[in-house]
Formats: sequence, structure tokens, C-alpha cells
Amino acid sequence: MAELSVAHLLGIKYLNRDDLELIFETAAQFKQVINRPIKKVPSLRDITVANLFFENSTRTRLSFELAEKRLSADVVNFSASSSSVSKGETLVDTVNNILSMKVDMVVMRHPHPGAAFFLSRAVNSVIINAGDGAHEHPTQALLDAFSMREKLGELQGKRVAIVGDILHSRVALSNILCLQKLGAQVEVCGPTTLIPKYIESLGVSVSYDLDHTLAHSDVINMLRVQHERQHLRYFPGVREYSQQFGLTRARLEQAGHPDQVIMHPGPMNRGVEISSDVADGPQSIILNQVENGVALRMAVLYLLAAKQEVPAPAETPLSV
Amino acid sequence: MAELSVAHLLGIKYLNRDDLELIFETAAQFKQVINRPIKKVPSLRDITVANLFFENSTRTRLSFELAEKRLSADVVNFSASSSSVSKGETLVDTVNNILSMKVDMVVMRHPHPGAAFFLSRAVNSVIINAGDGAHEHPTQALLDAFSMREKLGELQGKRVAIVGDILHSRVALSNILCLQKLGAQVEVCGPTTLIPKYIESLGVSVSYDLDHTLAHSDVINMLRVQHERQHLRYFPGVREYSQQFGLTRARLEQAGHPDQVIMHPGPMNRGVEISSDVADGPQSIILNQVENGVALRMAVLYLLAAKQEVPAPAETPLSV
Amino acid sequence: MAELSVAHLLGIKYLNRDDLELIFETAAQFKQVINRPIKKVPSLRDITVANLFFENSTRTRLSFELAEKRLSADVVNFSASSSSVSKGETLVDTVNNILSMKVDMVVMRHPHPGAAFFLSRAVNSVIINAGDGAHEHPTQALLDAFSMREKLGELQGKRVAIVGDILHSRVALSNILCLQKLGAQVEVCGPTTLIPKYIESLGVSVSYDLDHTLAHSDVINMLRVQHERQHLRYFPGVREYSQQFGLTRARLEQAGHPDQVIMHPGPMNRGVEISSDVADGPQSIILNQVENGVALRMAVLYLLAAKQEVPAPAETPLSV
Repeated sequence: MAELSVAHLLGIKYLNRDDLELIFETAAQFKQVINRPIKKVPSLRDITVANLFFENSTRTRLSFELAEKRLSADVVNFSASSSSVSKGETLVDTVNNILSMKVDMVVMRHPHPGAAFFLSRAVNSVIINAGDGAHEHPTQALLDAFSMREKLGELQGKRVAIVGDILHSRVALSNILCLQKLGAQVEVCGPTTLIPKYIESLGVSVSYDLDHTLAHSDVINMLRVQHERQHLRYFPGVREYSQQFGLTRARLEQAGHPDQVIMHPGPMNRGVEISSDVADGPQSIILNQVENGVALRMAVLYLLAAKQEVPAPAETPLSV
Repeated sequence: MAELSVAHLLGIKYLNRDDLELIFETAAQFKQVINRPIKKVPSLRDITVANLFFENSTRTRLSFELAEKRLSADVVNFSASSSSVSKGETLVDTVNNILSMKVDMVVMRHPHPGAAFFLSRAVNSVIINAGDGAHEHPTQALLDAFSMREKLGELQGKRVAIVGDILHSRVALSNILCLQKLGAQVEVCGPTTLIPKYIESLGVSVSYDLDHTLAHSDVINMLRVQHERQHLRYFPGVREYSQQFGLTRARLEQAGHPDQVIMHPGPMNRGVEISSDVADGPQSIILNQVENGVALRMAVLYLLAAKQEVPAPAETPLSV
Repeated sequence: MAELSVAHLLGIKYLNRDDLELIFETAAQFKQVINRPIKKVPSLRDITVANLFFENSTRTRLSFELAEKRLSADVVNFSASSSSVSKGETLVDTVNNILSMKVDMVVMRHPHPGAAFFLSRAVNSVIINAGDGAHEHPTQALLDAFSMREKLGELQGKRVAIVGDILHSRVALSNILCLQKLGAQVEVCGPTTLIPKYIESLGVSVSYDLDHTLAHSDVINMLRVQHERQHLRYFPGVREYSQQFGLTRARLEQAGHPDQVIMHPGPMNRGVEISSDVADGPQSIILNQVENGVALRMAVLYLLAAKQEVPAPAETPLSV
């Protein structure tokens, strides 16, 4: 059977084209599984997975947890708020402790860029990056690309726009890397203050005009205005942002591409970066993204588990 | 087989008499199940239930979680404190996201009256209301009525008093509706400030004198003084409340009904609305209520799952 | 089959020598189990265990939870922050409520000394003390002793030093009691302000000089400086503490016992009570302690479950 070229999922930048295809094929199979009445498979039955979330993320954590449970893994959850981290322990010690309890795989969300990479060098376990600061969020980029391919087929030559706060977004960076490996052309669009200077060096085009971007894109991926990070200082106010970069029905109609695909990684600010009639409209595949997220994460967990050493044959269970 | 007339459990007001009887019969069967050494049944084996608690409630959440696990459902928990709600997402988006992950049933506690009703119109899933503000808490009313029937038989003509903070209590409202459907006569008793003006229009009698109420009631359901809602401004102080509306052994003896049934939905403030000798005394069925809560919730989950469409026959599982 | 002399695990002081041997033998078997590819056994399949943590403890909670899941128990978690405790409920009421939901065993961490003992007298369930204030933490002492025996064999006559904050440590007290029952000689070492006056009455020797202690000990168990309890007033500062009582490679080499075993219950403050080269060095068994913790807790859960009444034969499951 084909296998991944990597032992961890740290970022899209470590994956090659064959890895991407293998992940998408496997995700397509698991999508069939979760749409059956019996949604579970026994693939990871003897695997324990720890979800280590040093930042809150209901959506991503639930998606991974459901993926793990549908693969029949044993799951333990760990969140920073109730952790030894506040007692001064290092990240490596925290994770080594958890691994000593015979945990096989670690899914980690962490506020610091590079945390997952660092951990993969320091501990002896499969690491899946569920978001490391403003760096990468590889499973989001994979599920986004998978969802685009469902609608558009091969992405070679397709034009994908990512609109909004590019500066603080791990979703943007992972998406750019993934889409380019698949042959798509990427444009980023947003206020000047939220598009980093280095971004053109990645080979993407830059636009500061949403209508211009809408006119020539096959896919529009709207990023969230991150109110809770309180960087409203990057633009005058929510209304001004919405007027310039909010996606509305009127704007879509003016662009005149009724097959244009509308995406959003969630959670949405309805009426800010996206209007409700667009979010719930026929071009939106926002809820497909969520559904595909579970299937895609099942694929990643399954393929990485398969990369681990084949376990020795089980002895007869003790009478206990 | 008999089935419920409703597809959701939003409130007692939507249930008819046959629904109540079916729920009680099913709960009685499940009560046998949880008193066997093997407490689990496979009824919901391929169902995923999400517990969405936008307010803390250890007791209700644990009771539902145990009910779900004993039906062999897969369970995911979601609490507001760690949620996307704080990121400005709408309730419908939050729930639609969870449902897109192929969750079959949603149990929801929410601070706003009508939240469960609203949700049942907006999303495509079975909704069970686990308390919506000061509105309804239907499983509590059902387990209370089930517990009364265990002691007293049919409730037709029985006199049930609900004592305490009627104004802020979803337990009071759901109990009144449920007991009336079963033919009982309901009296509410408490300080004038905690009994809403509209309550008589529901057909209940009102008393401001606990001794008077005790003299002619078959059941006394003591509500909790909700210190944490900090509305002590509704009465002079805890001691005054306790002197007027606290249930003590002396008061019970004076009332002279040794078969009177004493209930409390918990958590109790011992020494405030109820004294310890009453709470732990022979007339108290407070812990029976808790035990019956698990069985009753198993019944509700089971009956609502049965109302869903029959799933298509499962295909052969993938080789994965 | 041999069985424990106790029905609860409240503290080391209630265990006799045979109990200790039985627990260690059983833990050794379970250690084999968790090192097999199939880490689960069905021993507690029809048992529900509630983990009640009135204080945060990621490490201990995870270790118990994994132990329970590998014994196939159903697990519910309860933490104080989201509990009815903040609503004024008594501990006995909280636990009786949980038990009324047909929970079989309770693992409890509580800030008050004696909480587990008190509870075992008040409720009808197996109680396992997972730490009660500064009193006892019996499973930590048992896993520590088990880990020492793996390295050193029988502990009779062995010299074990416990270094650091003896005053506030439940780990220290449980370790002293356990080691003495196994025939070891215990020395406590730390600043005068952190060694309680009564400690010599337990039959341990006292040292205020770490180098002196290192010179004649087989095992060094380094306790954590508990920054978060903010009692830095007990010593001038972290640097002074570290200079006098921090375990470094230089100090170990000067002591000249390359077979000396180094332990730490975690979480470690690297660079304070222990340097990284010691924590990660060849004499350290710190991660073995963590691994053994899961096996030891499986043994305790298994042996206490076996002490419960034999359940009546199961009836045929209902058609539900």
C-alpha cells in the first residue's frame, strides 16, 4: 500500500504531491464511511490519541475527536487551562509525561509558531499540528483543497483567492502552500495593513480590491475578522472593513460568476466579512468544509498510524 | 410500537398524555436496566450525541452523559466557556457546524428562553432541551412526575406543592405543565416577590404560607434558593427566608402527614430551604429523583432516536 | 485469590504489608498489559468510575483516566470549576448524587485533608484518594515504591531521601509511610522552614544539607518547589533554594554513587530543584514513574473492584 513520505503532519511544506493525493484518496473513502448508518471503523482500535489544546478551539478539537472516535481510537483530552503548564513545566516534559502513559499519537494546537516541529524532534511519538500560532494549520488547508476538488476537479490552473487578515492567519499560509503544490494560482486580498510584505515572495498575487479579485477567481476563501485578537487597530472599524472586504450578494452578482465557490474556515462573523445570504447561498460550501474536515482528519490519523512500526504480535491476554 | 407525537423534546407543553405515558413506561424499563450488573444496552450504538452546555450544570450534564453512554451512544461534550460562541458566532452556525460533523442528536442547556425551540426550527437534528433560561426544563419535570408516581401511583387528583423561587424557575414551570396534564392539582408557595403575577392564569393555586400548604399537600417539591443568581434582594435575608419557607422536621410533624412525599431538584442548600433531617428523612425521595433522572433521560433519547428516519441498510465496511 | 484488607484506598496508613505486595504484583502484571500492542483488558467492563477533581491535576487525572479506560470501565469526569460545589452544595450531597446515577467507584482529589476518609464513611461506594490536601497521595507513594523496587529489588534496609518541601507535601507523607512499611530507612532533607517539627516522630532522620544526604542514600526523591502556592516566603528566593537544594550533575558526581536512583513526582521545575542533565540523565527513573503510575492505578482499581460484592447474575437484556 502507498504510504506518506512523512512520519508527522507538521505543515504543508513537508508534504509532496504524492502525499497530498494519498491523503485526498483516503479522505474520500472515509467520507463514505461517515455517511453510512454505521460511521465507525476499527482501524485505530488499539491506539490512544491525546488531543493537546494549549489554545481553545471547539471546532477543530471536536472534529479531531470525532475523527478519532470513528476510527475507534481511545481518546484523552488535555486543555491548557487545567494543565501543569501553569505550574512551570516545559512543553517537552508535559508531552513526555503523557507519552510515558503509553499514548501513541499527539494532536496539538499551540500558540507558538514551530511548537509542533520542535516537539516532533524532542519526543518519540507521531505529532499532528492542529495549528501553531500564525504559522501553519495543515489539516485546514487539506480539507479546504479537498473541498475545492469536490466542486472543481483538479486544481491545476484554478484561481483561488484568500480574502481578509492574511497577516495573522495560519489558514492563509497553509492554504497558499497546499494550493501551489496542486498547481493552483493564489491571490491574497485584504487591507494593506493585514497583508504582510513578504507574501509576494511566496509567488502569490496581491490585491487590495475585493471586486477586482472577485472578477477573476474560481474560489473565494473568506477569512475571519478576528475580533477577539483585538487588532481592530489594523483598520478603522468593522463597518469600514465590511464595506471594503465584506462579501455580499450584490458583489457576487456584479462579479458575474455564478459557479464561483465560496468558502470560510469558520467561525463566521455574519454581516462582517460575509453576509448571511452569501454564507447560506448556493455557491457556499462552508458546511461541506466542516463535514470534509472529519473525513480528512480520519485520513491523516489513519495514514500516520500506518507509518508507525508494525507492533509485535499480541500475546494472549492475561487472565486479568 | 408506540411512538412519540413529537420529534424533539422542547418543553412539556408540546407533549400529550400518551407521550407522557410512553416516556414513563420506557423509563421504568430502563430503570431495571441500570439496576442490573450489566447497565448497558446497545440501542444507540451508531448514534452520536452532542451535549451543548452554554451554562454550567454538572448534575444535568452527567445524568445525560451517563444515559447516553448506557445506551452505547458516542458522546461529545461542548461547553460555552471553551467555545466559538465567544468568537461572535451565532448559535445556529455553532450547531450547524457540529451537525455537519455527523452528529445525530443535540442536548442543549442555554441561558435564553426559547433557545431550544428556535434551534429545532433552524437545524436538521433532534433537539433535547436540557433547560432554556427560566422557561422549561422538561426532563426534570418528567423525572419528578415519574418519581411521584413510583410513590403514589396515578397522579390524578393528587395535590402537589412547589415551594420557593417560582419566578426564576424553569423547574416550576415545566412541573406545573406536566402535573396538570397528569390530572394533579398544583399549588405554588413562596414569598410574594418570587411568585409571578401571571401564575394563577395557569390554573394553579397560590399560597404565601408554607404551613398552610403543608397541611393539604401529598407532595412537597422544594426549590433551591439560587444564591449564585444574587437576587437576595427578593427577600430580606437567608435567615428570614429559612424561617418562613424552610422545610423542617418540626413543620412536617405539625402538618401531620407522615406519607407526604418530599422532593428537591438539587443542588440543596441544607439549612436554608430544607433541613438535613428532612432531606435525609424517610419521606424524602431526593436521591430516587437522581436515579430516575438517568432512566428517564435514557427513555427520552431512545424514543426520539426511534422517531428519526430508519437508516438505509449498512454497506459492507471498507477494508480500512 | 488474595484480596486487599481494605475496601477503599484512603491512605497508605490503612494498608498492611500483604496489601502492598498484592498491589505490586498486580501492577507488574498490568505493566505487561500496557506494553503489549493491545493495551486493554475487559476487567471493569460493567463498572462506571467517576473522577472527581476538586483541584486541578492534569497528570494524576490523565493517569487514572487511562488506567480506567484500559480496564474497559466507563468513565465520567467532574471538575470543581464547573460543579455544583460553587452553588453551596455539600461534598456528601454532590457525591451521593453522582452515586445515585449508578456510579460504582469514585476517584477523588480534594484540597482538604481527610476529605476521602470522611467521604468513605458517608457514602456507599469505593473511594480512591487521589490526594487530599497536604495529607496523603497513596497511589503516588505506591508507584514510587514500585518504581524503586524495579531498580533495587526489595527495599528492606534501603536508604531513601525525600528532598524539598516536606511541610506542604502529601507525596512526602505517603512515601514515608509506605517506605517504612517496606523496611526502608527514610531521610527528609530541605530548608528548616519546610520541614515540620513533628516529622522526626515518624521515625525518619532529618537533614538540612543535601550533600550530606546524597553521600549515603540509595534513592533521591526530589519534590517540586510549588511556586503556584506562592509560599516563597519560606526561603529567600528561587536562586538560593536552587543553590542549596537543587540537584545538579556536579553534586551527584561529588557524592560518588553512580547507581543512586533519582526520582521526581513531577511536574518538574528544571533549573530549580533539579537540573536538566540530572532529570534526563542515566540515574533518573522519572519517566518510568509515570509509566508505572498507569499500571499501579490499574492494579488498585482492579483489586478494589474485586472487593465489592459479587453482582447478581445478569438477566437477559431487554429487547430495548
